[in-house]
Amino acid sequence: MSLKFGVLGGGSWATAIVKMLSENLEEVGWYMRSNYALEHIKKEQHNPNYLSAVEFNPSQLKLSNDINEIIKYADYLIFAIPSAFVGKELERVTASFDNKIVFSAIKGIVPETGQIVGSHFHDKYDIPFENIGVITGPCHAEEVALERLSYLTIACADEEHAKIVAKHLSSDYIKTTISDDTIGTEYAAMLKNIYAIAAGIAHGLGYGDNFQSVLMSNAIREMKKFIKKVHKMKRNINDSAYLGDLLVTGYSVFSRNRMFGNMIGKGYTVKSAQMEMSMVAEGYYAAESAYKINEKLGAKTPIINAVYDILYKGKDPKKTFIKLTEKVD
Amino acid sequence: MSLKFGVLGGGSWATAIVKMLSENLEEVGWYMRSNYALEHIKKEQHNPNYLSAVEFNPSQLKLSNDINEIIKYADYLIFAIPSAFVGKELERVTASFDNKIVFSAIKGIVPETGQIVGSHFHDKYDIPFENIGVITGPCHAEEVALERLSYLTIACADEEHAKIVAKHLSSDYIKTTISDDTIGTEYAAMLKNIYAIAAGIAHGLGYGDNFQSVLMSNAIREMKKFIKKVHKMKRNINDSAYLGDLLVTGYSVFSRNRMFGNMIGKGYTVKSAQMEMSMVAEGYYAAESAYKINEKLGAKTPIINAVYDILYKGKDPKKTFIKLTEKVD
Repeated sequence: MSLKFGVLGGGSWATAIVKMLSENLEEVGWYMRSNYALEHIKKEQHNPNYLSAVEFNPSQLKLSNDINEIIKYADYLIFAIPSAFVGKELERVTASFDNKIVFSAIKGIVPETGQIVGSHFHDKYDIPFENIGVITGPCHAEEVALERLSYLTIACADEEHAKIVAKHLSSDYIKTTISDDTIGTEYAAMLKNIYAIAAGIAHGLGYGDNFQSVLMSNAIREMKKFIKKVHKMKRNINDSAYLGDLLVTGYSVFSRNRMFGNMIGKGYTVKSAQMEMSMVAEGYYAAESAYKINEKLGAKTPIINAVYDILYKGKDPKKTFIKLTEKVD
Repeated sequence: MSLKFGVLGGGSWATAIVKMLSENLEEVGWYMRSNYALEHIKKEQHNPNYLSAVEFNPSQLKLSNDINEIIKYADYLIFAIPSAFVGKELERVTASFDNKIVFSAIKGIVPETGQIVGSHFHDKYDIPFENIGVITGPCHAEEVALERLSYLTIACADEEHAKIVAKHLSSDYIKTTISDDTIGTEYAAMLKNIYAIAAGIAHGLGYGDNFQSVLMSNAIREMKKFIKKVHKMKRNINDSAYLGDLLVTGYSVFSRNRMFGNMIGKGYTVKSAQMEMSMVAEGYYAAESAYKINEKLGAKTPIINAVYDILYKGKDPKKTFIKLTEKVD
């Protein structure tokens, strides 16, 4: 009996993950809220809203707009709902998570609890940590659509679960590494969005490539300190799951977090930037959570602090960054 | 009596360094080979060939096309001649280096000896190591011209020398850090050009941003291993002088090394790429030197090896990179 996988989410990252799994499985469960998108995939073989060039074989998909149906269906659940909505989506869940292996491909914080997704699942649904895992990049979904070589890190306390997920995501264009640092990789994926906002602010303020490289070099050192305080273990912060993920986001002109930061740097207010983008960048919530978590941890995080001060305390970006430039080296 | 500084070289990096020093000194010595450029600076206040938007005050410059005159003139010599030509330029030197403090702003290998510039000076001119220093980025000269905030690392075994050079380069737009890792920072500056070639080859072959971030993440780990074998000491490879310098070059579309790699990836032969660019990228020499040095060191350097195989052994870029993708993670 082969294992069943279910992907939860209708966005670009969920779409990319369904594509990866489709290379290896006869059937992939796929929950999304939008009935329109769902019907479109059935009739037109592609997601109308995200990665629309990716063609699916509808007979290979078990599509549903009922989250409970897909949870019941699958042994391995992969959540790829934007963190801002995951709390709300989970409210619909009545199905049991017993014996389910739950992987998060969500990069961010559950706004309602301020927790990373893994901890949220553990606390709220009593899922044991060995049944919780994380899928991290560096990986833009758009490049998966183009089948450009990408590397994923699959982290889980239970190595067997990590190996199984890794095997089912691997293909000609996807290479996977496994890790036991569930907490560290998830925090890294969350923190990098804050640093991408910082990179965007710097760009918006007129700082150039020289400063951007100094900022990223400081960001990875800051991330190391932060994660070490959260969960001390032997890890190489320069592995792709940490540094690679930071770089692919921090250097991407397509990153929504970087774009949001750029608008802030150019003088938009937080509200007007969010309205203009008609969405909230994940790093926006991450900045508040990381700042608050760090009030207890006490890691030295001048970049996170600067982003927090600008986004939540209404501090002037220009002045805040001038101060920040004295703190980085 | 104030200290005298002399800059040797007429390229963009030399021009940027003269500009930085001009912010602090009443007079800056400047040697360049080209009489035409020299006369142009005197008459037109800018270097006709490099960073031509930068305006100089000729009365503040002691210009000479006689390298010995500037060596005699200055207490602190800053060499910014491309590594490919530094051996030849030094052949003209008859003046003594006694009591001179010699800083290298050259990122590369002296082709005639296969040494980094600091070691070349030490061996050939008997300059003690405490009088030899290194100036490294991350710093594109073009952004110095625009007075965009940039950070330099000034390394010297003698902290006082490092501090003096740092002080004279600092300004509103230049921040400096000092370091005692002369050897490590110089090797980092040399190795990063090889990684920039690798990034270019990957781009030329059609790899995307996801792979680029994996490549950079592996490059910094590889650089750490290499430098550790060359000179073991306590250093944070994620400091700006190492990681920052790698990033500013590896992500720059203007980097000549990256451009050279890109052409190789697109199918140019080494010779045709060099002819097309009408120059030899510094990473070309660095790849051979690093490869040969590492034959003795034995660090695990799959990226350097791949670049070496392609540039010097005529190996096929596509096949070599497919193999490389199996070795990185």
